[in-house]
Amino acid sequence: MIERYARKEMTEIWSAASKYRIWFEIEAHGCDALAALGVIPQEAAKNIWDKGGNAEFDVARIDEIEREVKHDVIAFLTHLAEFIGDDSRFVHQGFTSSDILDTTLSVQMARATDLLLVGMDRVLAALKSRAEEHKYSITIGRSHGIHAEPTTMGVKLARFYAEFARGRERLVTARKEIAVCAISGAIGTFANIDPSVEHHVAEKMNLAVEPVSSQVIPRDRHAAFFATLGVIASSIENIAVEIRHLQRTEVLEAEEFFSKGQKGSSAMPHKRNPVLTENLTGLARLVRMAVMPAMENVALWHERDISHSSVERGIGPDSTVHLDFALHRLAGVIENLVIYPDKMADNMNRLGGLHNSQRFLLALTQAGVSREDSYRLVQRNAMKVWEMFRTGGNAGEGAFLNLLLSDKDVTEHLSDSQIRSMFDDEYHTKHVQTIFDRVFG
Amino acid sequence: MIERYARKEMTEIWSAASKYRIWFEIEAHGCDALAALGVIPQEAAKNIWDKGGNAEFDVARIDEIEREVKHDVIAFLTHLAEFIGDDSRFVHQGFTSSDILDTTLSVQMARATDLLLVGMDRVLAALKSRAEEHKYSITIGRSHGIHAEPTTMGVKLARFYAEFARGRERLVTARKEIAVCAISGAIGTFANIDPSVEHHVAEKMNLAVEPVSSQVIPRDRHAAFFATLGVIASSIENIAVEIRHLQRTEVLEAEEFFSKGQKGSSAMPHKRNPVLTENLTGLARLVRMAVMPAMENVALWHERDISHSSVERGIGPDSTVHLDFALHRLAGVIENLVIYPDKMADNMNRLGGLHNSQRFLLALTQAGVSREDSYRLVQRNAMKVWEMFRTGGNAGEGAFLNLLLSDKDVTEHLSDSQIRSMFDDEYHTKHVQTIFDRVFG
Amino acid sequence: MIERYARKEMTEIWSAASKYRIWFEIEAHGCDALAALGVIPQEAAKNIWDKGGNAEFDVARIDEIEREVKHDVIAFLTHLAEFIGDDSRFVHQGFTSSDILDTTLSVQMARATDLLLVGMDRVLAALKSRAEEHKYSITIGRSHGIHAEPTTMGVKLARFYAEFARGRERLVTARKEIAVCAISGAIGTFANIDPSVEHHVAEKMNLAVEPVSSQVIPRDRHAAFFATLGVIASSIENIAVEIRHLQRTEVLEAEEFFSKGQKGSSAMPHKRNPVLTENLTGLARLVRMAVMPAMENVALWHERDISHSSVERGIGPDSTVHLDFALHRLAGVIENLVIYPDKMADNMNRLGGLHNSQRFLLALTQAGVSREDSYRLVQRNAMKVWEMFRTGGNAGEGAFLNLLLSDKDVTEHLSDSQIRSMFDDEYHTKHVQTIFDRVFG
Amino acid sequence: MIERYARKEMTEIWSAASKYRIWFEIEAHGCDALAALGVIPQEAAKNIWDKGGNAEFDVARIDEIEREVKHDVIAFLTHLAEFIGDDSRFVHQGFTSSDILDTTLSVQMARATDLLLVGMDRVLAALKSRAEEHKYSITIGRSHGIHAEPTTMGVKLARFYAEFARGRERLVTARKEIAVCAISGAIGTFANIDPSVEHHVAEKMNLAVEPVSSQVIPRDRHAAFFATLGVIASSIENIAVEIRHLQRTEVLEAEEFFSKGQKGSSAMPHKRNPVLTENLTGLARLVRMAVMPAMENVALWHERDISHSSVERGIGPDSTVHLDFALHRLAGVIENLVIYPDKMADNMNRLGGLHNSQRFLLALTQAGVSREDSYRLVQRNAMKVWEMFRTGGNAGEGAFLNLLLSDKDVTEHLSDSQIRSMFDDEYHTKHVQTIFDRVFG
Repeated sequence: MIERYARKEMTEIWSAASKYRIWFEIEAHGCDALAALGVIPQEAAKNIWDKGGNAEFDVARIDEIEREVKHDVIAFLTHLAEFIGDDSRFVHQGFTSSDILDTTLSVQMARATDLLLVGMDRVLAALKSRAEEHKYSITIGRSHGIHAEPTTMGVKLARFYAEFARGRERLVTARKEIAVCAISGAIGTFANIDPSVEHHVAEKMNLAVEPVSSQVIPRDRHAAFFATLGVIASSIENIAVEIRHLQRTEVLEAEEFFSKGQKGSSAMPHKRNPVLTENLTGLARLVRMAVMPAMENVALWHERDISHSSVERGIGPDSTVHLDFALHRLAGVIENLVIYPDKMADNMNRLGGLHNSQRFLLALTQAGVSREDSYRLVQRNAMKVWEMFRTGGNAGEGAFLNLLLSDKDVTEHLSDSQIRSMFDDEYHTKHVQTIFDRVFG
Repeated sequence: MIERYARKEMTEIWSAASKYRIWFEIEAHGCDALAALGVIPQEAAKNIWDKGGNAEFDVARIDEIEREVKHDVIAFLTHLAEFIGDDSRFVHQGFTSSDILDTTLSVQMARATDLLLVGMDRVLAALKSRAEEHKYSITIGRSHGIHAEPTTMGVKLARFYAEFARGRERLVTARKEIAVCAISGAIGTFANIDPSVEHHVAEKMNLAVEPVSSQVIPRDRHAAFFATLGVIASSIENIAVEIRHLQRTEVLEAEEFFSKGQKGSSAMPHKRNPVLTENLTGLARLVRMAVMPAMENVALWHERDISHSSVERGIGPDSTVHLDFALHRLAGVIENLVIYPDKMADNMNRLGGLHNSQRFLLALTQAGVSREDSYRLVQRNAMKVWEMFRTGGNAGEGAFLNLLLSDKDVTEHLSDSQIRSMFDDEYHTKHVQTIFDRVFG
Repeated sequence: MIERYARKEMTEIWSAASKYRIWFEIEAHGCDALAALGVIPQEAAKNIWDKGGNAEFDVARIDEIEREVKHDVIAFLTHLAEFIGDDSRFVHQGFTSSDILDTTLSVQMARATDLLLVGMDRVLAALKSRAEEHKYSITIGRSHGIHAEPTTMGVKLARFYAEFARGRERLVTARKEIAVCAISGAIGTFANIDPSVEHHVAEKMNLAVEPVSSQVIPRDRHAAFFATLGVIASSIENIAVEIRHLQRTEVLEAEEFFSKGQKGSSAMPHKRNPVLTENLTGLARLVRMAVMPAMENVALWHERDISHSSVERGIGPDSTVHLDFALHRLAGVIENLVIYPDKMADNMNRLGGLHNSQRFLLALTQAGVSREDSYRLVQRNAMKVWEMFRTGGNAGEGAFLNLLLSDKDVTEHLSDSQIRSMFDDEYHTKHVQTIFDRVFG
Repeated sequence: MIERYARKEMTEIWSAASKYRIWFEIEAHGCDALAALGVIPQEAAKNIWDKGGNAEFDVARIDEIEREVKHDVIAFLTHLAEFIGDDSRFVHQGFTSSDILDTTLSVQMARATDLLLVGMDRVLAALKSRAEEHKYSITIGRSHGIHAEPTTMGVKLARFYAEFARGRERLVTARKEIAVCAISGAIGTFANIDPSVEHHVAEKMNLAVEPVSSQVIPRDRHAAFFATLGVIASSIENIAVEIRHLQRTEVLEAEEFFSKGQKGSSAMPHKRNPVLTENLTGLARLVRMAVMPAMENVALWHERDISHSSVERGIGPDSTVHLDFALHRLAGVIENLVIYPDKMADNMNRLGGLHNSQRFLLALTQAGVSREDSYRLVQRNAMKVWEMFRTGGNAGEGAFLNLLLSDKDVTEHLSDSQIRSMFDDEYHTKHVQTIFDRVFG
């Protein structure tokens, strides 16, 4: 985990202290259930909560024991015995280490997801608000990086909103995948532990019961979870790349907020760089890289091997921490994004109305010209405008219109006023409301 | 796509002929909608269906045109004009190529998913049937490849059943992600095409409407789809690895069906190899490798760039074709798997009852011995049995029991009959029904 | 393999016909060596060459046999017997299938690499030629997409040249990794085949001898090979992304060649899109996706399992075919790239000389102003220019210079002529020759 | 980075303190070179070394400044000024941040590689020593997990030795890829800094000069580096999987060393698990996951964007730290591996000599029987032995020999003594020395 890309709320979920607290709760709830079954004394269960319920576990001490016994759960139980005394022998009765470890991981992933959902909601709120604000800020749509036809900044942002709304749904699904509890004993047969213990612990820890575990909770669940994070990270990259494009010098239709006293470059004082969105692009790669090892973790040997464990010690915290950070960084970028409607209009208009080429093509075919001929006719004039733009930096207002008006092959089919009528931009924004209705309901 | 790992049903979905058929249908349904709006003549729409509805498109001819115009949709439309004549100019009015390409991809992916679901169902049926058959075939559960405690072959298979049932659900979700239609024009603004056209085409092609598209359907949908295939492939690897382990010479608890006349090795006539499951392990890698490029495809530039296209020409067919093949191969393996209950029992029993070590540990703690002391006591005897097994190949029946009976530190706490009572295997299978109820309901 | 991204020279290397030809050669050379040892009769070896040396193997027939025996090498040997008659029993004596399969794969990968090197050389030649041509075509260097300081198009291209030259070296190394021969028998012990056979076959097939094989050639070699292809693919993406940026409407400093009759968009006749470089971006992803499965192939079970085989049937041809195609496509793009020096100059100059901000900063510090103060002074003026550019589309010639000349805090430290002296562009290109010497030396 | 999988020697290379120390050295060496050119005063350069040469930089203070200026290098330079006073204005003259950052990364990666080479050497030494020790410890070779023909544990280990020797070579190559220095100014043109500065710093830092940089050192170098780590990690997985197989209960031919007081399982006292090699399997996945983002980092925008930076903050330390740890863990496992030659022999012999099936097949063909008939003959007897093994756990000594001796179709072609002569194991080990000569020279 890279600390500079971490928020405290998320790292705390993965701290050793949090982990041991969850371990304790699972063990102690387990004792309650075992006491209810009469397997262990009621007083023992009570004593365990009394002594451990508010205890601060000594992480360093547990580490020390682990170095000796080379087993983390045994180390914890040994430390627990130092607190609880004799009754500690009733703890972990019929449990296997993985019952604790896997259920704890479930709790941590579920809590991490809850935090991620907060981040998603902040991104969604920012996108919605800025989309409303720029609902009709006209801007050129670009395919292949080339001017195509007008759209609005609001539609662009609505598109990202819809994408993140899908991401949010996926995250809710992914949470269900991993919010499961397994307390099923050494290899999942409940030989030494009654299924009712699992039910009780699951309920107390807000988890579903894993219907059939081996020694571990099946790792296809975790693979699906990390894959989901990878898809969301890719959506972050998507909007980050958009903003980076909008800020590049020649486009400059939007800029990340640049605060007082900030320096864009140690060497070049004139620079203001989209470093946050570039950073988000990198963070997306970091989150995404967990997907492949998570999938490799699925095929464990027989009832389990422990190869998945080291992987999850890495990707469990790292992916959720970095994604959480990225979501909040992204939300901040969107909230504070400086958008320049004038520049958007200027960039679009430098091509002299070329963005109406399709509309014109369709009018010609409607007027009875074959599609092929119409295409050639429009393309021939369009390429001239293009050249004017390239050489002069600005094709000039009405450049495309004027060429069409003076092209005999065009005027043969369309009247002056028909031609002129094809150059209003409202034509392109007439369904913005439709789109907004679909997205924001 | 590797032909030897392809079934015709699936490859046909991705054939050029299928593709052009879908292209035609989208265009022709679009014409109906345009005619309803009065944008094009009703007769034109009718004529298009009449001439093209049952036509066989000439793939080679379209390829030829494409080599000239360097644009696949234009090539198709040109070919269409050769069929339909003058009315062809009404086709594709206000559409952009991606409207056709992306909606077609959606149709193909949805159909491919339907086939995959058939494969999943066959795997599920096989797993269920074999699980019922071996519900109580006792076998040793292994963690870390080491004998742990008994389970049954039925529970093992039930576990895979539950995993594939989750995979099936994920697949249904993934289908929803990609079964969407976009007919929204050049950059998704409906400037040149009314949203009602999209509604009509979507309905006819059994797709949902994409709420907001750019020039393309957003690629986070596809990323989620391929990620899902990757998770399922990992589950295939999971069961494949299990079977490979069961067949290895020293274990030999199950074998892939070996047909008459089959040769396991060109050099060594004694060989029968688990080549199908090894193959499935490789196929899983092939399916999984689509996940990363699918995620990289999400961040297209502005309203689209075409970098995703070549990737999808590869992974679209390849991943679904190989996964489809793998599912059927896997189903066949499970259906025909030769399972040896005797061998399972023999392997387990060679360790002289060692698999009751935990049960015994718990009994000692129940009898008042501290957990630490109990552990040492059991471990000390267990390691002796282990050594007998390692050196002799078989620790002998009752080996562990006998050692415990003659260990004074043990008999001090537990009576002879108490000790003996801990060596019945029903103890380990008593909750098999619970698990089956949970899984098969 | 996607046919539209394939060149015949490369696909032929991977054809069934080529494969069987290599199989035959390995077997026949092996027979020569066995005959020399007296293991099989000299006449048999001769007869095998006589009958098979120029034979066309019947791919369909071999496929048919394989469907029965379920083993590809046995199928081939059976077919061979149909040619050679009785002497065919001397073929494959002491060989294991993998001796043939793996050595053949080595031959194919080595040949494929030779073709890739041709492609690399074409790319290198194109880069060098265009670099020389535009050695002093000044253009703005951009970091973070933001104008930084001038460089030249020649330096840009020289940088890519150096990158591909490194790629070429890596490819030569990767070829050495996989150009190895193993004829070592069932599990690599030479029990049934003398090492001299391996030496003979290796020499005849232009391969090195694998020092120690198991049943197969170790897969770390192949992993290193595919990883190398992945790095080269990433370099292709690198230059492709550069060109896509240069062509985007607002930049337009270069364009992919657009041929007569070409259509950029089916809908918008004004479009010329950088589709080749976008395609290369996608192809890079396709090539790269082979890296992970190739690495997963390394850990085979014991002396081999066959999980690697299906993977290699896919990625072997696909990665080399697509990379080969991409290299030639890239070479073509570079050879024909339309570069606009005027536009490059115009884009740069629109920022009114801002690219000298660092130079000016250094001059101020040289004049005794603290770094912090110098920075603030320059930044303050630079941001004004930036605003002029953003709002007007052109800050105007000398905009930055004029502001500095009229800033009292500046003129306090630097004279008018000192300030003016800092605005010549040769300053930025004075080491172009140094760089060229280093790269093309 | 996961602390439990980290060695101090390696983490120190990546510590903030190490980083700032290298930053200082680069800046200070740069000042020397600038002083030699007369760009800055000699005394300033001297003063910088005097004040900073042995200074401890205050990491917390630098972090504090960075939070304000949002730029790490500027933060460092500001802190430096607090040490050095007025002369600090001569530091970083004409440098760009990346000159420092990238060259520092090169130094760190080079040093990390030197440590990795130490780890590789330890693994190689362990493999060699254990290979010599078990040069002739006979064991069954297994393909597909099925007994094939005998080999020796020494050959197995020699094979891994050769693989790691290749890995070592790749690592040396990878080090060359990244041990480069770039001090070329804002976008690599040396406009504000003379190339002689780069030469001087490179020499002092033991790096080669990057022939042509943009603002950064090209990332194909780093991609090649991380890909190399990924291949080595895969080789670690390879040997780890081998050992895990050897330790599984039914095989038990080797065991990881199990220390006194160690507990294999919290629940089952009888367990000794191969947890170290399982852990290595997971660590391999963690190292490997850096490969894809490293490749995605290659295509930076124009002269650089900063998306690579966050990725490298993660994978730079993580991959080298985890690989370093894994190499030493692996070395320890090999050094202390408990190998059981008796068990290897016992496992092999339980199949009653079946491993000579090929040898026998060849003898039959040599005796004039067709390959097809020979195969059927041998297979028919082999399958009987196989069944005896499966049902009895041991086919019995001489089981295969006895069947062959009593098969009339066999004895028709081979005499009793000929048949008997085919069952000595020296036959299979006769080329062990050849292999050792090739591997260990």
